[in-house]
Amino acid sequence: MSKYKSLKEECYEANMELNALGLVIYTFGNVSAVDRDNGVFAIKPSGVPYKKLKPSDMVILDYDNVIVEGDLRPSSDTKTHSYLYKNWENIGGVAHTHAMYSVSWAQAQRDIPIFGTTHADHLTQDIPCAAPMADDLIEGNYEHNTGIQILDCFSSRNLDYNEVEMVLIGNHGPFAWGKNAAKAVYNTKVLETVAEMAYLTLQINPNAPRLKDSLIKKHYERKHGKNAYYGQ
Amino acid sequence: MSKYKSLKEECYEANMELNALGLVIYTFGNVSAVDRDNGVFAIKPSGVPYKKLKPSDMVILDYDNVIVEGDLRPSSDTKTHSYLYKNWENIGGVAHTHAMYSVSWAQAQRDIPIFGTTHADHLTQDIPCAAPMADDLIEGNYEHNTGIQILDCFSSRNLDYNEVEMVLIGNHGPFAWGKNAAKAVYNTKVLETVAEMAYLTLQINPNAPRLKDSLIKKHYERKHGKNAYYGQ
Amino acid sequence: MSKYKSLKEECYEANMELNALGLVIYTFGNVSAVDRDNGVFAIKPSGVPYKKLKPSDMVILDYDNVIVEGDLRPSSDTKTHSYLYKNWENIGGVAHTHAMYSVSWAQAQRDIPIFGTTHADHLTQDIPCAAPMADDLIEGNYEHNTGIQILDCFSSRNLDYNEVEMVLIGNHGPFAWGKNAAKAVYNTKVLETVAEMAYLTLQINPNAPRLKDSLIKKHYERKHGKNAYYGQ
Amino acid sequence: MSKYKSLKEECYEANMELNALGLVIYTFGNVSAVDRDNGVFAIKPSGVPYKKLKPSDMVILDYDNVIVEGDLRPSSDTKTHSYLYKNWENIGGVAHTHAMYSVSWAQAQRDIPIFGTTHADHLTQDIPCAAPMADDLIEGNYEHNTGIQILDCFSSRNLDYNEVEMVLIGNHGPFAWGKNAAKAVYNTKVLETVAEMAYLTLQINPNAPRLKDSLIKKHYERKHGKNAYYGQ
Repeated sequence: MSKYKSLKEECYEANMELNALGLVIYTFGNVSAVDRDNGVFAIKPSGVPYKKLKPSDMVILDYDNVIVEGDLRPSSDTKTHSYLYKNWENIGGVAHTHAMYSVSWAQAQRDIPIFGTTHADHLTQDIPCAAPMADDLIEGNYEHNTGIQILDCFSSRNLDYNEVEMVLIGNHGPFAWGKNAAKAVYNTKVLETVAEMAYLTLQINPNAPRLKDSLIKKHYERKHGKNAYYGQ
Repeated sequence: MSKYKSLKEECYEANMELNALGLVIYTFGNVSAVDRDNGVFAIKPSGVPYKKLKPSDMVILDYDNVIVEGDLRPSSDTKTHSYLYKNWENIGGVAHTHAMYSVSWAQAQRDIPIFGTTHADHLTQDIPCAAPMADDLIEGNYEHNTGIQILDCFSSRNLDYNEVEMVLIGNHGPFAWGKNAAKAVYNTKVLETVAEMAYLTLQINPNAPRLKDSLIKKHYERKHGKNAYYGQ
Repeated sequence: MSKYKSLKEECYEANMELNALGLVIYTFGNVSAVDRDNGVFAIKPSGVPYKKLKPSDMVILDYDNVIVEGDLRPSSDTKTHSYLYKNWENIGGVAHTHAMYSVSWAQAQRDIPIFGTTHADHLTQDIPCAAPMADDLIEGNYEHNTGIQILDCFSSRNLDYNEVEMVLIGNHGPFAWGKNAAKAVYNTKVLETVAEMAYLTLQINPNAPRLKDSLIKKHYERKHGKNAYYGQ
Repeated sequence: MSKYKSLKEECYEANMELNALGLVIYTFGNVSAVDRDNGVFAIKPSGVPYKKLKPSDMVILDYDNVIVEGDLRPSSDTKTHSYLYKNWENIGGVAHTHAMYSVSWAQAQRDIPIFGTTHADHLTQDIPCAAPMADDLIEGNYEHNTGIQILDCFSSRNLDYNEVEMVLIGNHGPFAWGKNAAKAVYNTKVLETVAEMAYLTLQINPNAPRLKDSLIKKHYERKHGKNAYYGQ
């Protein structure tokens, strides 16, 4: 029996949840889960429909994309996942989708402004939309370079991946992460919801103001601050 | 056995209905139900997923937010609920959500104009959007002050909470209430529906006129007036 | 046993279908079915939730709104239905809803332009939006006068109710009819679909042209003309 | 037993999938599947509701629209299907629907711009919207001429049906095809998804730029190029 059985199961469950939440059609998404002790992560195999997916189909790789276990080809976006795991040591899961509203903001090449408390309950910043990559980066090691693009975006904007657990890649779509795969999926759903709310807000009032700082701080702190009183 | 068993069940059922109606994702909402004879109310515990929720998880508090019964932390919005119960003696239930269209109007900081009979079947006024609170109120006893903000909004506009059973808090989202918890949930769904209709109406015709007074009166009266002929 | 048992069942099934198609929330709609031989029609009782509805709850009335059989109060919109049955002898069923896109066009007080073949498969005209009624008609016998308003709209525009089986009442919502109750529900769903398509079309291209006459004629005739070749 | 049993089953399954994916209401769509060895194709019968449809109901015709087997009248759009089979020898299935967003772009008479990688994962071109036909073509052999219109559109724009497996007919709706009926349905769903994304993108940013060539090439090639690494 595989020593990665529970890791594969965590990864499998998170992928199935992505589908159950309506965030993917066909095979347009992938979730991975990391095992920091063993320096490996599990990821969805490429192009396998959800209804045929089994926990044992998950592919195990190290952070240099060497397959450690698994008979199937891993997700075509694997190198973006591994780059994030290698560089961001606190994250435990990564999710990528082509969810409708997130993709539409990415195609519009716009950051999602922080308009309300639903957003501030999760992060204090606009959701960043990284610029499309330079041609040579696209033509080169594309998925690896997508990881670089994400880190460059966070670096140039002084964003902390421990707080901002989501990003849009211009013209492509969202990546989200978190302490484990389930949290990465949760953040993907939150991003999609906030993206739809921001879209509708601008339709109703093109001059809708950004959320004021005091409300941003209050809502973020009551859920994530040291005196947080949300949850059990 | 708890003397509040039936109160907890009413509260539990209303929270589950909120979820079944598609008005919440994850734990983004809460409903409470009051027991006027005993001066207490039941409310959803904070951050507990709907599929794990049990009637016995509901927390019982008095109007000063003292926990009377329950092992879990109550909803982080509890003080807004208690403030409404304390000040509005006729209401029996309160609901709060981050439902999509209601939140979008709140983020746009706009009242929802009364455009049609679906709206007038339930109230004769535009649905008010209370302004975001002053910074010191946000930084202080925030959820309590949210209750104050709602009452100030109703007072300054001469609105009667017995007729207008819903409000938007600017940049945040909707609160609704009614004679019991089920009615509060019903009003939340009506508000979300009317919010979507008003959004679409303005997309189709940015100059859509307000509903004329005679139609407002006719539709409201046939359902709520002393000669009402709607229902059994 | 009631002599109207099968009429009640037809009416009940059509009302339940309205709900199953997502055209109503709560009790925001009603369907009736006529028995021309006996000069009566069956209609949904007022304000009864769909999950509690039984065929035997349907109320039987004559065209002058006298209750012939039934213990419950009929739909508050009954007099509009009876007026249509009395004046339009070919129709066998009527449906009224507050469906989202149909209501939004009604609130925008705009006819739905014929933009494509989905529309032309069912009628050759823009879907008319009747103007809101004069105040004295609203304050008077409102639901009866709604029927008059529909007929006035058809008369002033030279529309034939045998072809145009649907209408919007300004600021209110849609009525649809047909050879029986099921067809009235079908037309309600078609209207809602065409209303959403027309809304999206104008968002994509505010100058979208009306469908050309040759295409209107071709699509309508291949389904409804004397040489129709659609269906079995 | 029919020699076309498996062809009918392929066709039946694809039609049912169209319905399961929410791409059709009522009977507003049809899928066909070809048997190149026998020079025939199976197609949905006209106007038969999905819940009554059986595999044995599928109609078998040759490319000149002569019925080879079947008791029911074939889809009214049959001649468009046969024209495509006759002229495009590599295709194995064709699907036609009145899906919401695809129809709305068709009614707007606009090509769907390539805005992102979801689009580029499937084709490198804008999705073409063929102009509505000339009046004499509409009044003549309409469905046959619709096929001509599609081929003229591809010819005048130098498009290859092996790569661009979808088209919008102005004022009407989408046709899609592929190596078999299931792929035609898949392409119909992809088209509908891309149509909704493009609509939302333009709402968020009316000046959203077309996807850059390097990204178009990278995404198309990684899935369809000779060094493709997507899928198993």
